[in-house]
Amino acid sequence: MAAPRRTDLLLDSVTRLLRVGASANLLNLLQKQHPTDIAEILRRLQPHYRRMAFDTLAEHNARFAMQALSELEPDQGAAVLTHRPVEELARLLGELPVDDLAALLEWLPDEVSARVRDLLRGSDQGAVGDLLQHREWTAGRIMNPKVFALFEDLTAGEAVAALQQSGGVEMVFYIYVIDDRRHLVGVVSLRRLLLVPPQTPLKHIMSADIVSVSVDTEQEEVARLVAKYNVLAIPVVDAENKLVGLVTVDDVIDVIKDETTEDIQKIGGLEALDEPYIDTPFWTLVKKRARWLVVLFLGEMLTATAMGHYEMEIARAAVLAVFVPLVISSGGNSGSQAASLMIRALAVGEVTVRDWWRVMRREVLSGVVLGALLGVVGFLRITVWSQFFDTYGEHWLLVAVTVAGSLVGVVLWGTLAGSMLPFALKRAGVDPATSSAPFVATLVDVTGLIIYFSVASVLLKGTLL
Amino acid sequence: MAAPRRTDLLLDSVTRLLRVGASANLLNLLQKQHPTDIAEILRRLQPHYRRMAFDTLAEHNARFAMQALSELEPDQGAAVLTHRPVEELARLLGELPVDDLAALLEWLPDEVSARVRDLLRGSDQGAVGDLLQHREWTAGRIMNPKVFALFEDLTAGEAVAALQQSGGVEMVFYIYVIDDRRHLVGVVSLRRLLLVPPQTPLKHIMSADIVSVSVDTEQEEVARLVAKYNVLAIPVVDAENKLVGLVTVDDVIDVIKDETTEDIQKIGGLEALDEPYIDTPFWTLVKKRARWLVVLFLGEMLTATAMGHYEMEIARAAVLAVFVPLVISSGGNSGSQAASLMIRALAVGEVTVRDWWRVMRREVLSGVVLGALLGVVGFLRITVWSQFFDTYGEHWLLVAVTVAGSLVGVVLWGTLAGSMLPFALKRAGVDPATSSAPFVATLVDVTGLIIYFSVASVLLKGTLL
Repeated sequence: MAAPRRTDLLLDSVTRLLRVGASANLLNLLQKQHPTDIAEILRRLQPHYRRMAFDTLAEHNARFAMQALSELEPDQGAAVLTHRPVEELARLLGELPVDDLAALLEWLPDEVSARVRDLLRGSDQGAVGDLLQHREWTAGRIMNPKVFALFEDLTAGEAVAALQQSGGVEMVFYIYVIDDRRHLVGVVSLRRLLLVPPQTPLKHIMSADIVSVSVDTEQEEVARLVAKYNVLAIPVVDAENKLVGLVTVDDVIDVIKDETTEDIQKIGGLEALDEPYIDTPFWTLVKKRARWLVVLFLGEMLTATAMGHYEMEIARAAVLAVFVPLVISSGGNSGSQAASLMIRALAVGEVTVRDWWRVMRREVLSGVVLGALLGVVGFLRITVWSQFFDTYGEHWLLVAVTVAGSLVGVVLWGTLAGSMLPFALKRAGVDPATSSAPFVATLVDVTGLIIYFSVASVLLKGTLL
Repeated sequence: MAAPRRTDLLLDSVTRLLRVGASANLLNLLQKQHPTDIAEILRRLQPHYRRMAFDTLAEHNARFAMQALSELEPDQGAAVLTHRPVEELARLLGELPVDDLAALLEWLPDEVSARVRDLLRGSDQGAVGDLLQHREWTAGRIMNPKVFALFEDLTAGEAVAALQQSGGVEMVFYIYVIDDRRHLVGVVSLRRLLLVPPQTPLKHIMSADIVSVSVDTEQEEVARLVAKYNVLAIPVVDAENKLVGLVTVDDVIDVIKDETTEDIQKIGGLEALDEPYIDTPFWTLVKKRARWLVVLFLGEMLTATAMGHYEMEIARAAVLAVFVPLVISSGGNSGSQAASLMIRALAVGEVTVRDWWRVMRREVLSGVVLGALLGVVGFLRITVWSQFFDTYGEHWLLVAVTVAGSLVGVVLWGTLAGSMLPFALKRAGVDPATSSAPFVATLVDVTGLIIYFSVASVLLKGTLL
């Protein structure tokens, strides 16, 4: 997905104007843009320019500036804001919907955040408090508490009138219907409201078949449900089925994006970052990578132990060492393929833990076929080379058979380990994406060596060994 | 994301009823479910049961059955339908919105599909033809051609009346405004329509700042725009800016899901599958994996060449071979980390190709730090072991320095190769996700060996070598 040329050009202009300090021109240029495009520009500017551009805009059009800011990652947005006096902070944050406000507050220093909260409008203050009491990564935390709901006894006509008077409600496409104790009882689409006679009570036109989530539902599950039922928003209820908020599809897309980023980083063999790559401080980045890298290194040390075990054989037939990287990497590669297939199939629900047996039978077959294929290619390579060079000595045929035979075993084992590990992790309550390519490769390398040298010691006994 | 327990139980009941052939009970059970849940059940049934369950439902409630079927992958849905007479096929398919209809038609055998198209209602026939003329994976192919649009001279009151009379329009939340040549000129939200006096002309209340895509826009770009601008739908225009269709956010979520699956499979080092894992025929699956596996194997053969080059050194000092897997796998692991970070950062637009230099400076530093860290751990391992066992001979200190030194070089090189490869691929117009963990590992293995043996030949000259 190439970034559109237009924002590249815009970024260049903005940078130029910032550099010469032409703030009037800058303001003029920015005000003509969509807040989302401004967010993209801010994201790509160096931090001090980012702050400068935001200040220029905020001074003249606070709401617009905050709208753009709220589309940045909240930590990035908070960093732009921190240096201001708390009164100004409260004023600027007051321009935002409550969910965005709460997200930014969390990233401000605790002391600043507490003082800003005291200065907020009463209604915002309560709503922010309500949001922040819920666990992170749950529906209660990402929902918008301002949800448009009407009592079931109202008529369609009254509903339209109520809608006309409603002010700051974010997005309305469904109207949620509640009973007199605020229990969620149904939903009416805005369109349906227009299609019935004005005196029809809501309870006669509402659909009672409504998908909702609880405040404790994990955001990943919220995203799954919105995607599954193709809804534009999902209502959030508390433990007593009282309607307390709404998660809209645009927030869900952000959740899907974040969860995917996390999965891909885990698959790559590092801890998931909390912030975008470019904003992650250098030492945080190193730490997130180092931990897994060291764990893998410690695991991989077993290869040195295994190799040490076969040092005598290697000293006697150095030609054996020549094929070690080839053989073990093939196991790692086939394992990485199988693992990524399973991680994704589990994530989208194509397979569940209950299918492990069905998958295993299939993967055993795949492993045998793929192993045999690589075995043949490897055999041919050694055979052909031996016709032209004397690289592999007089026993080249035996070497070729050893390599080919080990490849079948190693690829089969790699495929099996790679495909079953995600199931085992999921079963153990760990994210299957943790079975990263490097993790599987490490697992397979040690056993690959043992397979290879065992085959060799059987086949080459009396000749090379 | 654990599959909800409820559908597991439902699946068990459905399977039991299918097994005993209790079709009346089955029908009764299925009709009480949400079509989306039925789709999930169908997806998880064995193919012959899937067909049987669908038939039972379709016989009594064709629309409902087709609604569930349209939520399967189109190839899966088509497989359920194929065995029917074309007249019945046309009748069943006629129950679907045009975009779903077209998607299914494509997966029917060509001859069947042509005959079904002849039997469709006139309006569907034309619309399907229009859709299928566009390239695959473009907005023109996934859009719904039935878009609710009104002329700019209409008033708000007339618009509401038109809305009330409109029948089969899929989802309405925005009303698109067109001029007398069907050029897209603006958009009005349904809500805004209710807030203004009925006699206000649409052109006075519409927003002209409208994000649209062309029929040729790649679906990935469509998804990016919908996510970026937080819209619920995006209008599709032809080359003359005439409004021809609409892509809604639920389709966009499907696109995001499919593109993610593709990315993760590529990162795992195989070709992306066109169908869900469980439905991919065995030999297709093997082929998709075998191609990359063989390419990687051929690349990895260079390690045998490199090792062959150092065979003499290995014969002289077998202890060197012992650390080969450890050293080269560390390069592969650090490369896999860097590549997955960059692939994702590029995909979500956190960095662009223009940032490569900034990223490279950062990654060089990371590589040095991580390499030094592993070097220290490796050095300690060899030192400690040598105090207790005589594994590494009298020159263990030199061996330890060799391994530690090589690790710095190999990890630095792995990090650099892993982080820059995605940029290079993107620059060359190839999907950065192609720089899979196995691909990077293979690239790094050969150079890792050269680094290791070069360091060894310098440090160990005159002692071990």
